[in-house]
Amino acid sequence: MGKLRSANRLLKSSSSYLFCRFTNLNLYSSKAPSLSGAYRSKGYAAHATSSFIENWHIWGVQSRHVSSVATLIERNPSFSTITVDDIAYFKNTLGDRGVIQDEEVLEAANTDWMRKYKGSSKLMLHPRSTEEVSQILEYCNSRSLAVVPQGGNTGLVGGSIPVFDEVIVNVGSMNNIISFDKVSGILVCEAGCILENLMSFLETEGFVMPLDLGAKGSCQIGGNVSTNAGGLRLLRYGSLHGSVLGVEAVLANGTVLDMLGTLRKDNTGYDLKHLFIGSEGSLGIVTKVSILTPIKLSSVNVAFLACKDYVSCQNLLVEAKRKLGEILSAFEFLDVHAMNLTLEHLEGARNPLPSSMHNFYVLIETTGSAESYDREKLEAFLMDAVENGLVTDGVLAQDINQASSFWHIREGIPEALMKAGAVYKYDLSLPVAKMYDLVEDLRARLDSAANVVAYGHLGDGNLHLNVSAPSYSDSILSQIEPFVYEWTSNHRGSISAEHGLGLMKANRIHFSKSTETVQLMSAVKKLCDPKGILNPYKVLPSSMLA
Amino acid sequence: MGKLRSANRLLKSSSSYLFCRFTNLNLYSSKAPSLSGAYRSKGYAAHATSSFIENWHIWGVQSRHVSSVATLIERNPSFSTITVDDIAYFKNTLGDRGVIQDEEVLEAANTDWMRKYKGSSKLMLHPRSTEEVSQILEYCNSRSLAVVPQGGNTGLVGGSIPVFDEVIVNVGSMNNIISFDKVSGILVCEAGCILENLMSFLETEGFVMPLDLGAKGSCQIGGNVSTNAGGLRLLRYGSLHGSVLGVEAVLANGTVLDMLGTLRKDNTGYDLKHLFIGSEGSLGIVTKVSILTPIKLSSVNVAFLACKDYVSCQNLLVEAKRKLGEILSAFEFLDVHAMNLTLEHLEGARNPLPSSMHNFYVLIETTGSAESYDREKLEAFLMDAVENGLVTDGVLAQDINQASSFWHIREGIPEALMKAGAVYKYDLSLPVAKMYDLVEDLRARLDSAANVVAYGHLGDGNLHLNVSAPSYSDSILSQIEPFVYEWTSNHRGSISAEHGLGLMKANRIHFSKSTETVQLMSAVKKLCDPKGILNPYKVLPSSMLA
Repeated sequence: MGKLRSANRLLKSSSSYLFCRFTNLNLYSSKAPSLSGAYRSKGYAAHATSSFIENWHIWGVQSRHVSSVATLIERNPSFSTITVDDIAYFKNTLGDRGVIQDEEVLEAANTDWMRKYKGSSKLMLHPRSTEEVSQILEYCNSRSLAVVPQGGNTGLVGGSIPVFDEVIVNVGSMNNIISFDKVSGILVCEAGCILENLMSFLETEGFVMPLDLGAKGSCQIGGNVSTNAGGLRLLRYGSLHGSVLGVEAVLANGTVLDMLGTLRKDNTGYDLKHLFIGSEGSLGIVTKVSILTPIKLSSVNVAFLACKDYVSCQNLLVEAKRKLGEILSAFEFLDVHAMNLTLEHLEGARNPLPSSMHNFYVLIETTGSAESYDREKLEAFLMDAVENGLVTDGVLAQDINQASSFWHIREGIPEALMKAGAVYKYDLSLPVAKMYDLVEDLRARLDSAANVVAYGHLGDGNLHLNVSAPSYSDSILSQIEPFVYEWTSNHRGSISAEHGLGLMKANRIHFSKSTETVQLMSAVKKLCDPKGILNPYKVLPSSMLA
Repeated sequence: MGKLRSANRLLKSSSSYLFCRFTNLNLYSSKAPSLSGAYRSKGYAAHATSSFIENWHIWGVQSRHVSSVATLIERNPSFSTITVDDIAYFKNTLGDRGVIQDEEVLEAANTDWMRKYKGSSKLMLHPRSTEEVSQILEYCNSRSLAVVPQGGNTGLVGGSIPVFDEVIVNVGSMNNIISFDKVSGILVCEAGCILENLMSFLETEGFVMPLDLGAKGSCQIGGNVSTNAGGLRLLRYGSLHGSVLGVEAVLANGTVLDMLGTLRKDNTGYDLKHLFIGSEGSLGIVTKVSILTPIKLSSVNVAFLACKDYVSCQNLLVEAKRKLGEILSAFEFLDVHAMNLTLEHLEGARNPLPSSMHNFYVLIETTGSAESYDREKLEAFLMDAVENGLVTDGVLAQDINQASSFWHIREGIPEALMKAGAVYKYDLSLPVAKMYDLVEDLRARLDSAANVVAYGHLGDGNLHLNVSAPSYSDSILSQIEPFVYEWTSNHRGSISAEHGLGLMKANRIHFSKSTETVQLMSAVKKLCDPKGILNPYKVLPSSMLA
């Protein structure tokens, strides 16, 4: 009680919203499933859409470069071009419906959803089975026809579109759920299943997918696995290297690798499925996936907090992991620059803590199985955090609308950035303790030339670093790059936390990986795909594949 | 309250121990850290030791085969033998202290701890740095000297001992903790760090290792990673493929691969570290490890329950994941055959539910951050389970001794089996729903010839299947094998859930992996180690490496 009183005192003297005003803050009673569902479809859909937008890279810059990508790369002359005989073979193998030459359809399939990259493929194939994928690849390999595997085409680094005239192999017609083990939560399905459809299926079974993405309405699980998609649940459920139990993949020569295990434990030889998780379709085409899905938990709470400095955000993260460990499902941060910009440009944005501005804001979400216990845990944690000075102000959502409005702030930042002008975007992984040093260094470097805005998944060590300026300028870009990549490299960070390398960053791999490691990657590539027909010009520097 | 009353009624009519008698069951108050420590050192040490014993395979059988292993395999004639010049080179490189030729020391290093396998190496090297490991391997590769990497030599499948005269490279002298990031819980250390020492270090920081093993007092983290050790915390924290963030490894030719990332998210190229997790030192020697460690949680509760049939055990698992999801840390099961045998042969074993025998028993452990909430959750779950008929009897530990005595039953099974006579042991992964079918099929097959005993980590789908008989007999063995392996293979199970293949099962890989997958494994082996000097005769069938 002494703690509670002192927390109240502090809050009364400093806050406009008091924790003690929200004693009945549990949002989603098990007695009100419709409310809970409503929140999820409303809150998460908004969350998801804007998260997807957040992934746009160097928006202003890249829109100038749309047509320049291919001109920087030469078409590999060892690749054949499509002939009438090839078309006849594919029609014979897949039937007419599986062979797409329609110009409008191809126009869409040749373009990424950001309209940043554009290929000139004249052929898209729609296999309906692993066997058909195998036949396609065996033939393409024998004919030296280059192939780009495509799923939902929602990638952000040009990984899923042709660079030149590669044959597009789209596995979207392979969209069957093969099995679901309710005891273990193990789902086996074809690669073309759309993530959101899998989510809906699992919802009825009382489970959830271990990943959630902004692109869930279009992206396919095979693409998710091939790109090692991160997304919104990584803090809680870890990466796909932990969740994916097995894959079936087809190598360039048509060999089908059945590694479709459904076991949590299996130490029989090298665990080669990991080669296909995150290799962006350049080692093989994933055709089936086995994945461990967690039980759906019903109790969700959201708090929006203010911290006086970045060290307090870090310490709050440590405390949250210690005291909320098993129910913590999101720990997001934004700095005051992100907050100001969002309040100014984002429609419907309202400061949850309006009495004064703070240097940093943190959004904490918990998800657990027992609403009253979870709520009490979070309340106790927040009171301690206030008492210890880690949090200077804060509010706990007391209903669905309030929770959604908190997420709207965090997830609306990318939209606000786009409305504010030109924006240079970077998706970086860095040690949490050093993450904000980069922001400050860049801010000092740019001085008044641009507005440096930082936010991201603090719990995952994933920084979304953005530079906002009235308009695009080469001088600003030259101040940012390669500075940001070098800084990241010097601190052993990753220049692509979750988006992959694709076409966009293939030649930048050395900022995050050692020469010896990239050499071994190239050797593995040559082993799996000796002619280099699978997703050429992507992932690895062209110099390594000569 | 209605629920509570009916639960009490059921328990009063059927149980000798009532849940309602244990309302104050939280064992380890945060106000009593010494108690908590005592439990762990007592409970887990016993747990650990016997768990280690449980891993002994086909104990009776293998003791007859000790000397026969090498006679079944021919020494690869392409390997050189050690010369005086080689010794001189190593002494010059490592100093005299790093070059071990003492017969007694070599006798120990040539023998696995079960005394099941025995090599005849004349040389053990103790590098103190990655650079030295690199020099050793570069030299051995140039001279075609075969090498066996050795850590704590606690493996169970003959993976860490020489088969013939391989040079033993033991990284035990590389035992420094390099860094610990308290914000993220990321530990970076050398491969020779003993697991228990890392646990002790983390204890002072308020963290735990994501794995715990019976062999923790001897095994080294480099060996844990190289064998993808499973152990006691997998249900909660997942496999090392999820926890290990980076490794540094040295290839056969001395190339150092720096993949020592300390990031939760990094999508820059193929994630090659996974090749070194679980490849049993056959692709390279792991020299450093980066690992994500969870926060240490203070509240632990243990319940011992009875179920009338295997379906109830399965359903109880589903309910436990749903209702205890985020605090569930163990879900172990044993059948009545295991219970009877243990009560008969294990010293100090006392039936926690003595009023009558039940077909199945389940041990549930929860670990969380808030003792009162966790306890209430577990109590509510247990009352529901009784009301729903999933549990027919049960007891919740009310003090440390009681919790330890529950674990003593579960962890004492292997010791009891050994005391009961000859035992044929199998460590299998199977879909949970099908797991017990194998036990019943084998029991029907063996009829009265032997006692089939089953227990294991139900939550992980890991079955420890044991056949106990008064003495070893070829006819019993021929009834069990290859039946058990074929049954497991037919149900897409794993013939080695956590121990690896090593020397023991290298030629059995086809029971769990497809031909195409094993062929790609062999190609990867040839890529990383063209001369095959690293841990020869292990993991892959010799026929694949010719």
